[in-house]
Amino acid sequence: MAEEAAVRAQAETVRRLKQDKADPDEIAKEVAKLLDMKAQLGGDEGKHKFVLKTPKGTRDFGPKEMAIRERAFKAIISCFKRHGAEVIDTPVFELKETLTGKYGEDSKLIYDLKDQGGELLSLRYDLTVPFARYLAMNKITNIKRYHIAKVYRRDNPAMTRGRYREFYQCDFDIAGQFDPMIPDAECLKIVHEILSDLQLGDFVIKVNDRRILDGMFAVCGVPDSKFRTICSSVDKLDKVPWEEVRSEMVGEKGLSPEAADRIGEYVQLHGGLDLIERLLQDPKLSQNKLAKEGLGDMKLLFEYLTLFGITGKISFDLSLARGLDYYTGVIFEAVLLQQENEHVEEPVSVGSVAGGGRYDGLVGMFDPKGRKVPCVGVSIGIERIFSILEQRLEASEEKIRTTETQVLVASAQKKLLEERLKLISELWDAGIKAEMLYKKNPKLLNQLQYCEDTGIPLVAIVGEQELKDGVVKLRIVATREEVNVRRESLVEEIRIRTSQ
Amino acid sequence: MAEEAAVRAQAETVRRLKQDKADPDEIAKEVAKLLDMKAQLGGDEGKHKFVLKTPKGTRDFGPKEMAIRERAFKAIISCFKRHGAEVIDTPVFELKETLTGKYGEDSKLIYDLKDQGGELLSLRYDLTVPFARYLAMNKITNIKRYHIAKVYRRDNPAMTRGRYREFYQCDFDIAGQFDPMIPDAECLKIVHEILSDLQLGDFVIKVNDRRILDGMFAVCGVPDSKFRTICSSVDKLDKVPWEEVRSEMVGEKGLSPEAADRIGEYVQLHGGLDLIERLLQDPKLSQNKLAKEGLGDMKLLFEYLTLFGITGKISFDLSLARGLDYYTGVIFEAVLLQQENEHVEEPVSVGSVAGGGRYDGLVGMFDPKGRKVPCVGVSIGIERIFSILEQRLEASEEKIRTTETQVLVASAQKKLLEERLKLISELWDAGIKAEMLYKKNPKLLNQLQYCEDTGIPLVAIVGEQELKDGVVKLRIVATREEVNVRRESLVEEIRIRTSQ
Repeated sequence: MAEEAAVRAQAETVRRLKQDKADPDEIAKEVAKLLDMKAQLGGDEGKHKFVLKTPKGTRDFGPKEMAIRERAFKAIISCFKRHGAEVIDTPVFELKETLTGKYGEDSKLIYDLKDQGGELLSLRYDLTVPFARYLAMNKITNIKRYHIAKVYRRDNPAMTRGRYREFYQCDFDIAGQFDPMIPDAECLKIVHEILSDLQLGDFVIKVNDRRILDGMFAVCGVPDSKFRTICSSVDKLDKVPWEEVRSEMVGEKGLSPEAADRIGEYVQLHGGLDLIERLLQDPKLSQNKLAKEGLGDMKLLFEYLTLFGITGKISFDLSLARGLDYYTGVIFEAVLLQQENEHVEEPVSVGSVAGGGRYDGLVGMFDPKGRKVPCVGVSIGIERIFSILEQRLEASEEKIRTTETQVLVASAQKKLLEERLKLISELWDAGIKAEMLYKKNPKLLNQLQYCEDTGIPLVAIVGEQELKDGVVKLRIVATREEVNVRRESLVEEIRIRTSQ
Repeated sequence: MAEEAAVRAQAETVRRLKQDKADPDEIAKEVAKLLDMKAQLGGDEGKHKFVLKTPKGTRDFGPKEMAIRERAFKAIISCFKRHGAEVIDTPVFELKETLTGKYGEDSKLIYDLKDQGGELLSLRYDLTVPFARYLAMNKITNIKRYHIAKVYRRDNPAMTRGRYREFYQCDFDIAGQFDPMIPDAECLKIVHEILSDLQLGDFVIKVNDRRILDGMFAVCGVPDSKFRTICSSVDKLDKVPWEEVRSEMVGEKGLSPEAADRIGEYVQLHGGLDLIERLLQDPKLSQNKLAKEGLGDMKLLFEYLTLFGITGKISFDLSLARGLDYYTGVIFEAVLLQQENEHVEEPVSVGSVAGGGRYDGLVGMFDPKGRKVPCVGVSIGIERIFSILEQRLEASEEKIRTTETQVLVASAQKKLLEERLKLISELWDAGIKAEMLYKKNPKLLNQLQYCEDTGIPLVAIVGEQELKDGVVKLRIVATREEVNVRRESLVEEIRIRTSQ
């Protein structure tokens, strides 16, 4: 039958896509097509028409991915703890109204829960708004905390580049009324430490200030009512060239060409302390109160960053705008730079891996009396970092272990299950990480193979003779060396041989 | 105005409830009433009418609660790793159809997401069904994994007893075709290790087998069609006396009084190997194939548990039924026992803290060809454990630290902010956990007080004289001792003084 041949061809397509590890969405589409075709043909398989997949834009983490993920988390958490942060957690969903009015245009990306009676709920969109809600609700005016958890955005997924609908954020924030720019500088130090520690390659941290942006818009002749929308045009400059952004400003957003050109001169500037000094002398900007405040603080920030020894990776960049509404002061974003090679003049940015800024008004939006708690924080975009670490590990020859098992309890002869159970129980009770095969009479070869496959370094072998002699034969997998160890010394021996 | 007095009285009610740490739902209700009253009065505050709270049945974890939570997780994870488990993670939501038909009557408790176009999604109800979906989707036939994550149930919350709508599960499962009862015994060993390690007081692990239950129902004369519903009546025996369960069986569920009485004789039995032996000789049960299989395996299980040395805490209990549909073999549940005292004859169960069992059919429900992967697993009910640990900590005098900071970088004089920034940066770069106050000129007393409050053990004090001499004054908070340490030895000195 022609239909059957078509089904077989489609099955082959699916098989090939899976083998090539194609985009999961594409695979899902082809699988769905296959199931449809089968269903039309009738027969058993038509009954199982539902697609076996995770929801769009999400993925499972298998043991290997988890091992990579935990490495990255470990580096990030130890940095947060090094800076004296406490940790908090909040529910995965919030009252819908808690999120309302915080994300501007992005609000359409919020996942709502179905109204099943009771409260209207939404999945959290970031960790910052729940943090502000937590501070206001508990009247906390002073805290340094981190929070690592998943957030949800009904965005267009681009999974190969690490953009998911469910993804982790690793946030560190400092809330409280403090002397200017000291906590802000610490946030940048943290980004610098984490990106250096993870060895992701060269990076640059772009810094700007909402007040400088707003002041710049004012002196360029942007009407107040257009600040936000022009700001979001500027935000695109890391992806599209100035000419395109300019024509969006003038064409779509109705800005005068002169104002656009004046903005154009500013947003192409980036540099360090020298640029800040120059702008402080700029005849127009220096007359604007907001810009002057922002530039003054930026100068102070650079002084602190100089003391931290990290200005080499910091770029004061007037094109950095950041989308979110709630920022009020310093903003920043860290981007990885492509490896330089002879064909490329300047290192090219391959994407943002961290971002943050100051948001002094957000907590006040939740407080019944509008009491403000100034905050500054950073969010590490861990998914893109996972993608890079995963790709790197795949390219390398490194074999990553997914368990920490120190010893396999094995037997060389049959009928020793009971002895294995007794021994492994002793080891567990002594805190040794131990496994055994769940077989009554496993072959020694299979037991040794299991150690090779999973990286278990030691095998404790029980046998008739060893039992009589009160010893266990300890085999070192890497060297195939075997030593008899007295039963009462076994735990100590395993500890010594697997320490470091 | 009388209305204003009423508002003030209501505000006082709210204040008192908060002070007494009353039930958050009750507080929320009174706050809502207060806001309504204010809104009717008019004025500024009426605008903020929305309630500042977390969704019903959920809660935030502040730094103190997180410190307790991480202690418990650490004990649990180290046990899972000791047994050689890998770790996986799955998305917080699944396709709705993935969860359909897995939870019986409890399906009504599933949270659905709003249909916003695209796939229909539900929040996961447990970690077992996503695990089975993961195995089928990736054609994994053999894995030992743990998974610690939040699950969601629109149940009636009882937060003081640790029952929430969002709560953690800590699952350990062994999937694969193995020799009977070896993985099952390991799951029980794990529960025993974790409950012992957490020192929650005395406990008992009840064990039964779905096949024994079904065989028992058959020989008692329960019609096949009533197995499930009679099983769920039996499940209530840990909360209500037999007489009530019996009248539910006969009255509501239409079972014959004779059948109910026969069941009554069985379900009041509990014991160990002796009971198993007795039932294997039972003239009726021994004739039933399912029951005989189940009893045979139960005997084997007890032999293995004897080798593990844990039968003292295990009770073969014919009244244990467990609600979920997917169990096919051994089932178990661990309950904490109330501290014995002179007024109580027998220790009373205060609630289940772990449960699990064998589910050999679940993965096959997801496989297009129905291929089965036998599984057995355990889930630790961590929220009740948190509640107990929290209450215990509150009762004790122990002060729990919420940070790991080793040293506070301080100054005794003014104008030393830059020197503090330089020193703390050196310490961070050397991996020392260090904090400083975010003030230009903090008072020494305030800096020392901060250490007292947060438990920081050391203070590194910079001053004019110390800078000249190339030293830092290191103060040990507990003893108030102060020593001058050469700047280049400071890191090493801090490490030594804060090791252990």
